[in-house]
Amino acid sequence: MRNLGSFLLYEVMRPQEIITIKRDGGELLREQIGAFIDGVCDGSWADYQISAMLMAMFTQGLSEVERDELTRAMLYSGDVMDLSDIDLPKVDKHSTGGVGDKTSLVIAPLLAACGVAVPMISGRGLGHTGGTLDKLESIPGYNVDLTTEEFRRIVKTCGFAMSGQTADIAPADKKLYALRDATATVPYIPLIVASIMSKKLAEGLDALVLDVKTGSGAFMQGYDDSVRLAEALVRTGNNAGVRTQALVTDMRQPLGRYVGNAVEVYECVKILRGETLPGSEDTLELSVELTARLLVSAGIAADIDKARELANSKLQNGEALEKFRDNCALQGADASVCDGPEMLLANGLNEYRVTSKTDGFVAEADARSIGEAVVIIGGGRTKAEDNVDHAVGYSCEAKIGDEVKAGDVLGVLYCRKPADAERVSEKLENAYKINVEPPTRSELVKKAI
Amino acid sequence: MRNLGSFLLYEVMRPQEIITIKRDGGELLREQIGAFIDGVCDGSWADYQISAMLMAMFTQGLSEVERDELTRAMLYSGDVMDLSDIDLPKVDKHSTGGVGDKTSLVIAPLLAACGVAVPMISGRGLGHTGGTLDKLESIPGYNVDLTTEEFRRIVKTCGFAMSGQTADIAPADKKLYALRDATATVPYIPLIVASIMSKKLAEGLDALVLDVKTGSGAFMQGYDDSVRLAEALVRTGNNAGVRTQALVTDMRQPLGRYVGNAVEVYECVKILRGETLPGSEDTLELSVELTARLLVSAGIAADIDKARELANSKLQNGEALEKFRDNCALQGADASVCDGPEMLLANGLNEYRVTSKTDGFVAEADARSIGEAVVIIGGGRTKAEDNVDHAVGYSCEAKIGDEVKAGDVLGVLYCRKPADAERVSEKLENAYKINVEPPTRSELVKKAI
Repeated sequence: MRNLGSFLLYEVMRPQEIITIKRDGGELLREQIGAFIDGVCDGSWADYQISAMLMAMFTQGLSEVERDELTRAMLYSGDVMDLSDIDLPKVDKHSTGGVGDKTSLVIAPLLAACGVAVPMISGRGLGHTGGTLDKLESIPGYNVDLTTEEFRRIVKTCGFAMSGQTADIAPADKKLYALRDATATVPYIPLIVASIMSKKLAEGLDALVLDVKTGSGAFMQGYDDSVRLAEALVRTGNNAGVRTQALVTDMRQPLGRYVGNAVEVYECVKILRGETLPGSEDTLELSVELTARLLVSAGIAADIDKARELANSKLQNGEALEKFRDNCALQGADASVCDGPEMLLANGLNEYRVTSKTDGFVAEADARSIGEAVVIIGGGRTKAEDNVDHAVGYSCEAKIGDEVKAGDVLGVLYCRKPADAERVSEKLENAYKINVEPPTRSELVKKAI
Repeated sequence: MRNLGSFLLYEVMRPQEIITIKRDGGELLREQIGAFIDGVCDGSWADYQISAMLMAMFTQGLSEVERDELTRAMLYSGDVMDLSDIDLPKVDKHSTGGVGDKTSLVIAPLLAACGVAVPMISGRGLGHTGGTLDKLESIPGYNVDLTTEEFRRIVKTCGFAMSGQTADIAPADKKLYALRDATATVPYIPLIVASIMSKKLAEGLDALVLDVKTGSGAFMQGYDDSVRLAEALVRTGNNAGVRTQALVTDMRQPLGRYVGNAVEVYECVKILRGETLPGSEDTLELSVELTARLLVSAGIAADIDKARELANSKLQNGEALEKFRDNCALQGADASVCDGPEMLLANGLNEYRVTSKTDGFVAEADARSIGEAVVIIGGGRTKAEDNVDHAVGYSCEAKIGDEVKAGDVLGVLYCRKPADAERVSEKLENAYKINVEPPTRSELVKKAI
């Protein structure tokens, strides 16, 4: 006899009928969201039906329950990592993406040195924002395409691994993201949350911290939107049983001294070596802050002050650097980068200096413009299939609040050809605003949630 | 030098950017709607982008100006007929579709007999509603696939032609309709208006009358929605320079005596012969009313009473029948159907009688149920590619308001096999409601706009 359950499912769950519910502003049930995501993965929903549903979700809205059910359905569209044989708290950090946003390379070895495991799945750069995988590939030999088994073994051996997403992790997200990008349905918080959290929850974490960037270089530029996104991410994570918190952090100007790939790794190794560069103080501060939040969540430190102290001590005593060295060896890379990070700095690049035209204080060093300039000279991608030139980049010699004289160098572009500098010089000049009065001080960490 | 106009067009008109405007509730400009429809036709908008735009239009709404610009863009996506060499007013009738809705077959020859030209582009049946082309094909030899040249010649020769839509008429509509059907974006009045009117305006008309059905057998079942649709159709037609009016007419029960293909043609030829069958009075009344409206619009009759009088006289004196005879000959059909329409009635069909269980008055004879029953026995389509059995059908022996005794026949189903009758007998029984009190009288023409 025919099973009544599947009969009802079959009768109720035609794509058009599910779309109609959301089109008319109704709330979708778990089963209906599940049927949608099943259809995305098995091809029984056509692309045009998926995009109609995404637009209906965007314009009619998703409730908190629907957002979390969507996240859950996308998460279970793929594999969830089983790291139960690793007897340490599992934690990770995720950033919504920025310019010069390189903290993962400091945080992962630092957390490992503090006694937690970090199964870090990262992405590549697109548009003006960089990606951890591209940065890591600046290190000769570094393999970011680990199998699940290699990934698990490396986390177990040295406390952290950094790899790209496999096809088995939240496959629905890959399909949905490509359609959202083509149909103007990206900038809607519940869809962003489901995309981010379906991948992060697949890591089987105990604790997660989200670095939600705000300002010109961020995906979500407005402060209020960034806070709303952070709150939604935190609620979805906690609802899924992962201790989740978020920091909303400044992305008006690039983070740290360098923007590029090899140069950002250089900056991070210098921090791990206890040799923080001028202009890198914010990278250090944010890395420690994000690490400390996770150490409290994971039960490693009793409070945030003790957690910061622990993190700083592991940087100073070289244990974080040793974790990075171990990881490099395990992921196939030349670990001598830990002893001589200058090997990352390419010779023979053209240098173009952006200088100040007046005396005053740096009021703006626009992150988006600087990020775009680095993409244009080859350091990033405009399309997913573009190649990246790891050597090129930009050095922020002056940051917001710095006092400068006319003629002082604000930044240095490292590019392949003088013509490259010509293409972006105006964009770089315009990225800066020099005022007579010093700007009002703005916190790096604007809000903790 | 690069043309600034096309540069701006290129910069402004990416699909995502146009979708974003509507997604956020903005009003689209003529150029943006034009770029959308161009993209639909030339394939530069992907199906998933088109369906995202349709859903954004559905949920965020289209203004009257946008609706008319969309209609215009869809109209000019294809050819507009040039009938300027026919020195008569060009008129047409369009129905939103119903059950037993056969008036086209009476109206077209009747209008031709009254001295106007009728370039009638018709469709096929789908779901519970029938289509004029299927009905015409019941007549042996009748060709509904005329070339534009044949179509023009036949209109010129006998005053009317009836043919299917060529690929050259509003090609954007074909694509959009298929996507709307799959993405739950059909039932939105401005999109319905654009779909109907882009095709009707392509006929190069002077006057148009729309028969907007309301009630269970109609596409738009609610009366208020039907009135809104009628008003929108009339405004769009008049805004495009075609004298347009609409009647909102009753579709709670089937129109006329018969539902099916050959049987409906039989009913119409009987009317044209002045031998209106019992139960066909409403078909005659509505055909005359729609014809009369067009005769006034076209300037043939001074007022509606004179127009009705003229139409009735052309039925009584046989001139309408002669026009139909001429048309049959010109469209390849056996014109002897005009002399012996009984040739259309198939022999050897199974008959199933629906009878009344009680004494009383017919309060319901549900058009949708009866239409669906005829589809199930093969007289219509559930998918566009289904074949139609022209011979099968249903005869409405009792109509709403008729007094019946227990055991009286309410209707007769003509089907191929006894098993066909078994499949629909319950549906047909349930289509009827017999009450002790007579129902309140309801007008066939509920509103004129």
